[in-house]
Amino acid sequence: MRCHQFLLGLLCALAAITAFPSLAHADEGMWLYNDLPRKVLAEKYGFEVDQQWADHLMQSSVRFNSGGSGSFVSSQGLVLTNHHVASDTLFKLSTPERNIMEDGFLARALDEELKAPDLELNQLVKITNVTARVNEAISAGMSAEEAAKARRGRIAEIEKSALDESGLRSDVVTLYGGAQYHLYQYKKYTDVRLVWAPETKSAFFGGDADNFEYPRFNLDATLVRVYEDGKPAKIEHFLRWSDADVSSGDLVFVSGHPGRTQRIFTVAALKFLRDDRLPYVLDLLRRKEILMQQYGLEGEEQKRQAKDELFGIQNSRKAYTGMIAGLQDPATIAKKATAEDSLLAKLQADPKLRPLAAAWDEVARLQDQQRKALREVNTFRSSLYGFAETIHLLGVEDGKPNNERLREFGDAGRESLLQELLSEAPIYAGLERVKLADELARFIEVRGGDDPLVAQVMQGKGPADRAADLIAQSQLHEVAFRKGLVEGGGEKIAASSDPLLVLARIMEPGYRESRAKGEQTSEQLRQAYAKITEATVAVQGTGNYPDATFTLRLAFGVVQGYREEGKEIPPTTNFAGAYQHAEEHGSSGDYQLPDSWLKAKEGKVDLDAALNFVCTADIIGGNSGSPVVNRSGELVGLIFDGNIQSLTSDYLYSDVQGRAVSVSGGAIRESLRSIYDAPTLAAELGN
Amino acid sequence: MRCHQFLLGLLCALAAITAFPSLAHADEGMWLYNDLPRKVLAEKYGFEVDQQWADHLMQSSVRFNSGGSGSFVSSQGLVLTNHHVASDTLFKLSTPERNIMEDGFLARALDEELKAPDLELNQLVKITNVTARVNEAISAGMSAEEAAKARRGRIAEIEKSALDESGLRSDVVTLYGGAQYHLYQYKKYTDVRLVWAPETKSAFFGGDADNFEYPRFNLDATLVRVYEDGKPAKIEHFLRWSDADVSSGDLVFVSGHPGRTQRIFTVAALKFLRDDRLPYVLDLLRRKEILMQQYGLEGEEQKRQAKDELFGIQNSRKAYTGMIAGLQDPATIAKKATAEDSLLAKLQADPKLRPLAAAWDEVARLQDQQRKALREVNTFRSSLYGFAETIHLLGVEDGKPNNERLREFGDAGRESLLQELLSEAPIYAGLERVKLADELARFIEVRGGDDPLVAQVMQGKGPADRAADLIAQSQLHEVAFRKGLVEGGGEKIAASSDPLLVLARIMEPGYRESRAKGEQTSEQLRQAYAKITEATVAVQGTGNYPDATFTLRLAFGVVQGYREEGKEIPPTTNFAGAYQHAEEHGSSGDYQLPDSWLKAKEGKVDLDAALNFVCTADIIGGNSGSPVVNRSGELVGLIFDGNIQSLTSDYLYSDVQGRAVSVSGGAIRESLRSIYDAPTLAAELGN
Repeated sequence: MRCHQFLLGLLCALAAITAFPSLAHADEGMWLYNDLPRKVLAEKYGFEVDQQWADHLMQSSVRFNSGGSGSFVSSQGLVLTNHHVASDTLFKLSTPERNIMEDGFLARALDEELKAPDLELNQLVKITNVTARVNEAISAGMSAEEAAKARRGRIAEIEKSALDESGLRSDVVTLYGGAQYHLYQYKKYTDVRLVWAPETKSAFFGGDADNFEYPRFNLDATLVRVYEDGKPAKIEHFLRWSDADVSSGDLVFVSGHPGRTQRIFTVAALKFLRDDRLPYVLDLLRRKEILMQQYGLEGEEQKRQAKDELFGIQNSRKAYTGMIAGLQDPATIAKKATAEDSLLAKLQADPKLRPLAAAWDEVARLQDQQRKALREVNTFRSSLYGFAETIHLLGVEDGKPNNERLREFGDAGRESLLQELLSEAPIYAGLERVKLADELARFIEVRGGDDPLVAQVMQGKGPADRAADLIAQSQLHEVAFRKGLVEGGGEKIAASSDPLLVLARIMEPGYRESRAKGEQTSEQLRQAYAKITEATVAVQGTGNYPDATFTLRLAFGVVQGYREEGKEIPPTTNFAGAYQHAEEHGSSGDYQLPDSWLKAKEGKVDLDAALNFVCTADIIGGNSGSPVVNRSGELVGLIFDGNIQSLTSDYLYSDVQGRAVSVSGGAIRESLRSIYDAPTLAAELGN
Repeated sequence: MRCHQFLLGLLCALAAITAFPSLAHADEGMWLYNDLPRKVLAEKYGFEVDQQWADHLMQSSVRFNSGGSGSFVSSQGLVLTNHHVASDTLFKLSTPERNIMEDGFLARALDEELKAPDLELNQLVKITNVTARVNEAISAGMSAEEAAKARRGRIAEIEKSALDESGLRSDVVTLYGGAQYHLYQYKKYTDVRLVWAPETKSAFFGGDADNFEYPRFNLDATLVRVYEDGKPAKIEHFLRWSDADVSSGDLVFVSGHPGRTQRIFTVAALKFLRDDRLPYVLDLLRRKEILMQQYGLEGEEQKRQAKDELFGIQNSRKAYTGMIAGLQDPATIAKKATAEDSLLAKLQADPKLRPLAAAWDEVARLQDQQRKALREVNTFRSSLYGFAETIHLLGVEDGKPNNERLREFGDAGRESLLQELLSEAPIYAGLERVKLADELARFIEVRGGDDPLVAQVMQGKGPADRAADLIAQSQLHEVAFRKGLVEGGGEKIAASSDPLLVLARIMEPGYRESRAKGEQTSEQLRQAYAKITEATVAVQGTGNYPDATFTLRLAFGVVQGYREEGKEIPPTTNFAGAYQHAEEHGSSGDYQLPDSWLKAKEGKVDLDAALNFVCTADIIGGNSGSPVVNRSGELVGLIFDGNIQSLTSDYLYSDVQGRAVSVSGGAIRESLRSIYDAPTLAAELGN
């Protein structure tokens, strides 16, 4: 599946490069809504982009801040997304007695809908180009560091004043490696309620084995509803439902929030990924996967507690395994190197452009710097420690002017930050203990057992004992305690003797140092990639799309099968195929369909109806839950995955075999009618 | 479980340190049969060692060359060991149609017994101290390298002439870090047949979750029979069965083959384990664990194929997790450091001994050297590549005189080597492909994708494609092909174009270089530890046991419970407890008892009979399958595990909570009678 939740943290710790890719081919591209690929659509598909069509699609699209996409699908606030995008919420709403995550959920009336503890949805309503305003803050004589600081300050100002004026969530997004800055303004929905989710057995049918494979037979869909003032929100822009299933050759559009691509990356950057970062990340993922598996072996309840995180880890591990496999195939780097060599040759041939070539060397140099920082541990992945760290830093940062704070503590982001900090989502002490113990063990491994900071952190104990003490003695699992600290402000936070806050204080200098170094490297990389973008535009001209930034983009493509190991893979599957797939795998383990499906098999569900399909649209993690629409803007599908051949699309798009995988829109309506006995809900879809 | 099969290769690649531990405490010690702890047994337990008693126990003990222990238990060649020690054979005898590994096996007559494809059992018949003969080869002026070479040559001579004279397998064993060399001579049994094995559900009841835990309820036992000239071998020395279950406080003895301990290790060596080697090994184990899990997800048959290896990996991962946790507890190193500091202070105070203190610095320096070599990859873990490498090296080494060859290619070991090379055990192409692909990926990660050797190995392909080609095009899966090469000798082997042999040729220089460096480091460490041993003896006197060397040792201890988290853990469990344990865990997954047990529950099996018990004897990996006997030398148990608190015993013995875990001897007889309907076999036990 396309959503690398587990790694969001990891990726953010890396340089968040967002820059200008080289030439787009075929159906490549994640296009900005304020710079759509009108020409290519007209020429290749005879499709003229109508502004109303585009505005409607834009405002029907929804961003899930937990890391995914969705769309409005009724005037009554209904939002469609993937089961695996909603899984964080499904998990938090589950209890030992009522396992919504595994067993699914259906609200038969509004008052049965369940409020998500900390979900925020965003609807993009306006994009403004603020490049000039940002650049005005920079003057000629500034050093790189001064420029970065001035830029950060100006961005914070723009965001703050936009928020104050409009009341909308206002984020300045860096595009084309800093060649452009756009202000994205969102209407926020923070009262989000669960309406329907199928069983995991249906949503994730085939489990880890089928993940990223095709053909597929998954109903990876969930419906939530946004509320305002305690009532379903009135929605003007929502998607209508197509009455027809897709067919091979159909032109389709995907409107969603691709998280991050790195198509601008140089050969040196790809080699760093291949030889350093991905091997490191995979070791870490496998470590956490085994840890969560082991915790789950302790009992059924522990298994339930670990499931959501385990799923996210497995998903990432499989995605990154595919990604490194792509990079380890010499043909991949060779293709990139050929393009790069040709571009560099052209630069060298032009005395005016020649100085820009130094940017490639600069990237290589910075990669060495990142290599050294790769294994540093300056924080611990545990929910409770996360609270401690955030609250502690909040106390310190709030003592500074808005534009000098660490970005997430700025005024503009306060509401979202508080929603996270004061979430009522359950905290499992056993799970926290196991996770923190492993993080402490990893901290010792990385710094060595004799390190003075290790001694200060461990207090003479081994990881298991120290973690047990910290979790047992901290009060941070109580929302009221967290609330008291946050409301008490800096002094109260600094005076707290909660052992996890004390630990966050001990870790603070190292955390800040490493973060500052990382941000400096990011800034230097940003500048190098800005030059690379400049060089690329100078040689190849403009008219391209920027790398993904978890902001709304439009992709397009056709419904199309492909060849694999000599076999033709058709673009669509149907309900009959799901039953057959289960039987072929002994209907056991992850290949067991839920009872609801077994009951509906004979005479109820339309076995010939399309269930999943593939298309050539250019997607990436974060696009999970994106609506797929036809030329008329009607919903025909719901993105939930990319096939294994698409996993290199982080750095290289290819439509030879790479495909986006969707649930058919018709299948969602059909399953609500014939499997989940929810005709009223089915009728609300698109109305 | 106590047998770290997966890591045997890894451990051998490391410095095989076998030296002299510091003072023995409590029931500590893995004693040599030619230097038994007579004094301590007499003083502490009033037990006088009778030479006949000891000789009988020694000759009743059996070594499994696949990595474990066992004992003769009838005059007709019956050998008792653990299910998990026999699992390599159970796995090789299993087919998609007949899953002996999972479902168990019972031969009701001799002609139903199944011949193991490549199992070799050894019975120790004679120990000779050859220290003087080895040392004679060394003269004063020799460099460290010359001395090592001379020593290796002399050892090969001694082994060869002992083999020629006696026809017995003859191995010279380095003890006390090179202070002593003993010649161990074994009668070999290579016709070994499976007689009885229980279901995995009974042998490994509780699975990975219960592994290394206590209380336990496992029937981890298997019976094989050795044959000579096609008939059951006549056995003079075999163990009688005790009619009584053990009781708390009983003195017991364990006679088995502990694989390796490192109690001589200095603080620097332990820190290297803590901060470098164990983190590295654990990353590798987790990687292989996920790989095997993923392969198993492809289908039931793949799951069966991967099971044996997966089990070994999980077992090692859990053991090493416990080991690193012990080392990360500052108290562990502190304890060792206190003893070391006190010893060093005494050395410094004595001008004659003072120079020996330099050995500790030398170990620290060599640890740095090992740190650098840690991540090198010069071979690939796959059965087929293993054949290729061994056959290729055999071809080269056979052109040299016996005493100049790599050790495993010496004349003395030829029969065992051929048994491995020409094994009829099945090779699974799919599994080999996946394993080799991952090894190639790891090779790229370690050396970097641009390395010239990587380019030579990969031939322009990615790991999956390259591995698929190699496995598809090699003929090494055919025994006849391997036989033809081995019999054809050096020239034929060198001329072969089998792609895996070609690959082994490409890898040879790096392999030899790394092995030579490793052996040099080992030799230097050996010399340093010999000095540390000398210093220890000078300060503390003699009368101790050498570190484990996978040779026969006698341990002793008492049947005794312990306290854990404030609770008293009684030393024995019974059959009733097994049924209760299953129910408490929902009788599902690894907590499902097999049908045979469920049928026997009411009125058949003696629910009060002891099933497992713990004692304080000092054991380690390799002791799995060791007989436990009482004062009369009668069998009362079968070692199969150590509890989690004993996992630090690699480097530090403790009997506060650390315990060896056994199947009760009575439980084996009882289950054969009442659960497995095998009264004839039950009657043969001990007769």
